[in-house]
Amino acid sequence: MHLSPVCLAKPVLHGYFRSSCSWRVRIAFALKGIEYDQVPVNLIKDGGQQLTEQYKSLNPMQQVPAVEIDGITLSQSLAVIQYIEETRPGPRLLPADPKKRAQVRMISDVIASGIQPLQNLYVIQKMGAEKVPWAQQFITRGFQALEPILKQTAGRYCVGDEISMADICLVPQVYNAERFKVDVEQFPTINRLNQTLIEIEAFKVSHPSCQPDTPSDLRT
Amino acid sequence: MHLSPVCLAKPVLHGYFRSSCSWRVRIAFALKGIEYDQVPVNLIKDGGQQLTEQYKSLNPMQQVPAVEIDGITLSQSLAVIQYIEETRPGPRLLPADPKKRAQVRMISDVIASGIQPLQNLYVIQKMGAEKVPWAQQFITRGFQALEPILKQTAGRYCVGDEISMADICLVPQVYNAERFKVDVEQFPTINRLNQTLIEIEAFKVSHPSCQPDTPSDLRT
Repeated sequence: MHLSPVCLAKPVLHGYFRSSCSWRVRIAFALKGIEYDQVPVNLIKDGGQQLTEQYKSLNPMQQVPAVEIDGITLSQSLAVIQYIEETRPGPRLLPADPKKRAQVRMISDVIASGIQPLQNLYVIQKMGAEKVPWAQQFITRGFQALEPILKQTAGRYCVGDEISMADICLVPQVYNAERFKVDVEQFPTINRLNQTLIEIEAFKVSHPSCQPDTPSDLRT
Repeated sequence: MHLSPVCLAKPVLHGYFRSSCSWRVRIAFALKGIEYDQVPVNLIKDGGQQLTEQYKSLNPMQQVPAVEIDGITLSQSLAVIQYIEETRPGPRLLPADPKKRAQVRMISDVIASGIQPLQNLYVIQKMGAEKVPWAQQFITRGFQALEPILKQTAGRYCVGDEISMADICLVPQVYNAERFKVDVEQFPTINRLNQTLIEIEAFKVSHPSCQPDTPSDLRT
């Protein structure tokens, strides 16, 4: 069997330890058991390494993550996760049933389109002194919507009893909520799911506290 | 053959004529040739009909669209579009090739996560007098990223020569750009794709200017 060099190469994740969208991709790689290399992109240092011309050629949005895989470069974490899902073996990240798949995508998008973009670095940098209440407001509003949705769809995990892309999105968003001091305990389903998920190996090894670029004072 | 009543029912789209996310779903229905019913949700009237308790039970995010289909209720337009794709015949909305599918999802998410959430009604209402420059800034920044991506992926349409979910996202976002007086001609690939796409029947019949809830002075 002949494999081209491009297929033998490990994927390369350009990310940042604390970026929730980078963490999503790290969880997906870990769940699938895919080995990959990490190239840190420090969003703070030197005014933000994501703003360099070199990085812009990888991701014109100048955000993390960007993933080099199978000869193409992809940005947008959910596009990366679904590409992995469609090309790699291992535990599936979306259920087989079309309605459950739709619910997984709906929950993922409530987070990826409805919450995260409104509290990401690029946006809150524009809010000055208002940045914490701004982020809190959008996270709280999003969780108020997510809680009744998850109450209907959840079993052990966000949708039924299989880990999915929805769980991959939930845990990093709860981490962000905690950073912005949103009281997650007011959302019992979200809180219960998060508590269950953070004990799982793939979520642990990918955690912001133990990445190659995690500063020593933030390591646990 | 016995069909349950739920399968015979037409999908119901709760949307608003001028909402870009509602338009995405209307385009997808039109491309697939799916008949559906529309229930208008006026985002302005009475302080916003999306804020009623009744609507909140359909979409806890209190945004449009919400779609009742096959006995479930879905929000988040890309989840709806991919559900239609996975359950309905007709022209496919994502390419067969996994790399091209990933590119379609990446472009869709640049718009659905990277641009639209930052200029939607709920957010700009908070910006007061700054709302137009705020929206212009995020649309321009997003289009500056989208232009080089599309330059690489586009054929006749956003990704190669097949209409896809990426095109479904692009046209309503260009419409929003024009509403906020962003000069789209500075983005030649985006502009060219949009010009091609708006001539296609499915994009025409779903246009905000000719929906059941379009006010008479905005009809063309």
